Amino acid sequence: MIKVVLFGSGNVVYHLAKAFRLANNIDLVQLYRRDPNNDHLFDLKIKKTSSLKEIKKADVYILGINDDHIAEFSTKLQFSEGLVVHTSGSISMNQLKCPAHKGVFYPLQTFSKNQKMEYKTIPFCLETEFSKDMNLLKTLAESISKNVYEINSQQREKLHIAAVFANNYSNHMFKISKDICDEHQISFDLLKPLILSTANKLDFMDPAEAQTGPAKRNDQKIILKHLEQLHSDQKEIYSIISKSIIKTYQKD
Amino acid sequence: MIKVVLFGSGNVVYHLAKAFRLANNIDLVQLYRRDPNNDHLFDLKIKKTSSLKEIKKADVYILGINDDHIAEFSTKLQFSEGLVVHTSGSISMNQLKCPAHKGVFYPLQTFSKNQKMEYKTIPFCLETEFSKDMNLLKTLAESISKNVYEINSQQREKLHIAAVFANNYSNHMFKISKDICDEHQISFDLLKPLILSTANKLDFMDPAEAQTGPAKRNDQKIILKHLEQLHSDQKEIYSIISKSIIKTYQKD
Repeated sequence: MIKVVLFGSGNVVYHLAKAFRLANNIDLVQLYRRDPNNDHLFDLKIKKTSSLKEIKKADVYILGINDDHIAEFSTKLQFSEGLVVHTSGSISMNQLKCPAHKGVFYPLQTFSKNQKMEYKTIPFCLETEFSKDMNLLKTLAESISKNVYEINSQQREKLHIAAVFANNYSNHMFKISKDICDEHQISFDLLKPLILSTANKLDFMDPAEAQTGPAKRNDQKIILKHLEQLHSDQKEIYSIISKSIIKTYQKD
Repeated sequence: MIKVVLFGSGNVVYHLAKAFRLANNIDLVQLYRRDPNNDHLFDLKIKKTSSLKEIKKADVYILGINDDHIAEFSTKLQFSEGLVVHTSGSISMNQLKCPAHKGVFYPLQTFSKNQKMEYKTIPFCLETEFSKDMNLLKTLAESISKNVYEINSQQREKLHIAAVFANNYSNHMFKISKDICDEHQISFDLLKPLILSTANKLDFMDPAEAQTGPAKRNDQKIILKHLEQLHSDQKEIYSIISKSIIKTYQKD
């Protein structure tokens, strides 16, 4: 059994707790959150504390706290045994300032409170200060997911930027698309099959190969017609992305 | 039985032909394509012609040809019986210049030659010049899909712009994301579960509600750190979209 203590009260910690409870080789011994009244997330039966003095012994201590607080919070963990890891995509391992061994346990997924997650498919990106700790962290990750990768801090930083494009920015395209539909009394449902098939295509096709549309064809007539119909912000985004697409596929 | 003649040799016509062959109330009587040697797409057994004089009688004539050629090509269809429809998202119905009744039969999906399509989920956007022709077109569309909508030319034009954002531009975000991965020896596979879950979320959550990430949080520290690491084109896109996201969620 791998003993784990979780720190935090956000969605990452909530879902990690749920995933760990499903695994049969993990003993989730405790949950630390600063505010003892912040229990609305925790319908799970886990021992909780809001006192750092009461932290129990564990093999792995997982900080699921805000990026900005990781460095400072880690200085408060003054024990030297066990492995302390954070779960952030954009913070380097060295920002952990505690005497214990350090590592990173980064689930590459967005977690929404009420979304049912398929934990098995979530990619976990692991890093450890000492190579001998990697096995432990791998066993932990593999007990909840089948997609486990060793990724160093520099790669993780790039991966985080790639994830911003793949997730946040594609989602903003969906938002703009829905705004256009709403404004013209068109159901956004019409676009959902297209969106799903665009995502599913990546399983067997590179995004470059899958690209279609007026910008890919450098169809200036349609592009200008579209630009005329957009609001200023939408127009700027349409214009920049169409230019980038035209440039991308002219190069090839 | 609804008698159909298809015109064109692209992916839309290819997949419509396949879908119609699966329906039991459609008689696909003929396929017209200009170039008789352009038969590599047509593994299906359909009667073909490349002579406009040989066009057979049908209930519906479907032009799956290039946007730029629709108006001109339609002048060549000098029969006056039956319903002539085009399949374009960005051309108005009135660009059809033939004596027969006119309409639009627009499948809101991108068609790749080798992709297996789930025809049943493809949204079909229909328009007819005369309301009495709508029933026929609906019956035709409903024989291959369960998502059939009446959409007028003005709405269809907006819908096409919405589809550019939802499909082409989100796919370009995937392309940039993959470029970043490739450059740093990171497998793009790591991002696929995130992309799929972003698309799947739209089934039960608005894109605005689903948005996460540094721009949503207006986390300038991370945004600047990301910008420093991007190439000039990527940087411009990152910057414009992050600004748009910040503006969107500050307004709320």
